[in-house]
Amino acid sequence: MIKALIFDVFGTCVDWRGSVARAVAAVLPDIDAEAFATAWRAEYEPAMARVREGARGYVALDELHLENLDTVARAFSVDIPDRMLLNAAWERLDPWPDVVAGLTRLKREVIIAPCSNGSIALMTRLARHAGLPWDCILGADIARGYKPQPEVYLAACAALRLPPEAVMMVAAHNDDLIAARTAGLRTGFVPRPTEHGPGQRRDLSAQSDWDVIARDFTELAGKVAALGPSGGVSRADA
Amino acid sequence: MIKALIFDVFGTCVDWRGSVARAVAAVLPDIDAEAFATAWRAEYEPAMARVREGARGYVALDELHLENLDTVARAFSVDIPDRMLLNAAWERLDPWPDVVAGLTRLKREVIIAPCSNGSIALMTRLARHAGLPWDCILGADIARGYKPQPEVYLAACAALRLPPEAVMMVAAHNDDLIAARTAGLRTGFVPRPTEHGPGQRRDLSAQSDWDVIARDFTELAGKVAALGPSGGVSRADA
Repeated sequence: MIKALIFDVFGTCVDWRGSVARAVAAVLPDIDAEAFATAWRAEYEPAMARVREGARGYVALDELHLENLDTVARAFSVDIPDRMLLNAAWERLDPWPDVVAGLTRLKREVIIAPCSNGSIALMTRLARHAGLPWDCILGADIARGYKPQPEVYLAACAALRLPPEAVMMVAAHNDDLIAARTAGLRTGFVPRPTEHGPGQRRDLSAQSDWDVIARDFTELAGKVAALGPSGGVSRADA
Repeated sequence: MIKALIFDVFGTCVDWRGSVARAVAAVLPDIDAEAFATAWRAEYEPAMARVREGARGYVALDELHLENLDTVARAFSVDIPDRMLLNAAWERLDPWPDVVAGLTRLKREVIIAPCSNGSIALMTRLARHAGLPWDCILGADIARGYKPQPEVYLAACAALRLPPEAVMMVAAHNDDLIAARTAGLRTGFVPRPTEHGPGQRRDLSAQSDWDVIARDFTELAGKVAALGPSGGVSRADA
């Protein structure tokens, strides 16, 4: 019985690219803000990889974002007036339009929580900004590691005292779901075809037989509710 | 500037004694349910003490509650029809009548989170039952330790990426606040004079000059809001 849904956040729940670009444009009006946002995000994977590979201990994503901002500022040859303030752009990302209503509906049935590489601090402030009605905050800080390491998914399940098969990971990224399925979780895919802008080529569709595939969180909520007890969904509190 | 309020939960936010007694009475109609609830709770401190003292590693409170239930069932010479179900009574505690409205008002200004000895799983399900609108769940699981160990308060602040002086601990228990103040946090006291029943003698009033003293969460919310920026309260998102 599925008792909880846990969610990727950057890209799946919120439009990081558009939101960060707007924050960049507000303080650096003379540069290509979308290119800056994309370059900032491009440093994300290699920065986490150094932690995953053990080259450095666990560092919260807030710190990695700040280091990466310095890297990108150098590449763009710009001075950032207030590094901490611009870094907080990651706490003020706007949700995709279907997200708040979909999560609100899902929360009636199951526990909902982020399972993001963002820290508890980042996810907490982002939830306040975007109105994401999480029951609790799970993810990287709980595991002191970064997805797709299996311990991040497993630590989220353990924190809820649920077996992996009672938890569905929802993401717009096929590789996130491959890792979650390998760790024993159920999987839900929602495409976000403009996460990376108009020319996006990755993750335009489901690349496996994920347990649920929905075009947005509205359809996700309907499909999860429709599974019902016979389909393996049980109210979290039953 | 205070940016977050973190809360003791058992006794401060919810009536554990009345709620557990009702759950006990429902499955064990022939015993003194209030005495059973009190005896169950009496095992709480010694069970956590063994973890604090290092006699055993960190074990979530759910496990301690279950072990303690077995101890008390033996003392009362009763068989529990469904141990796990009765243990889940701790996830279904009713809030004091002022709590939900007070937290809802406080949440407009500051981050609110439990800093309880209950696990993330327990606090998550309890929040769903009682309608506690937490921004995130902090406490024992985050620190892998039990209050009043200083690391529990400090881990809560660190998870929010706030210095201790920007966080106020709210409790109905003076010893909780002594420990929080020693760790550098601000303090708020709300008495719960019937937590332990009609004959309660401890914690009937503030035993120190806590930063805020309020008769309930309604007054707490008003006093915190009235502090305003000049009194050291800043909107969490400002």
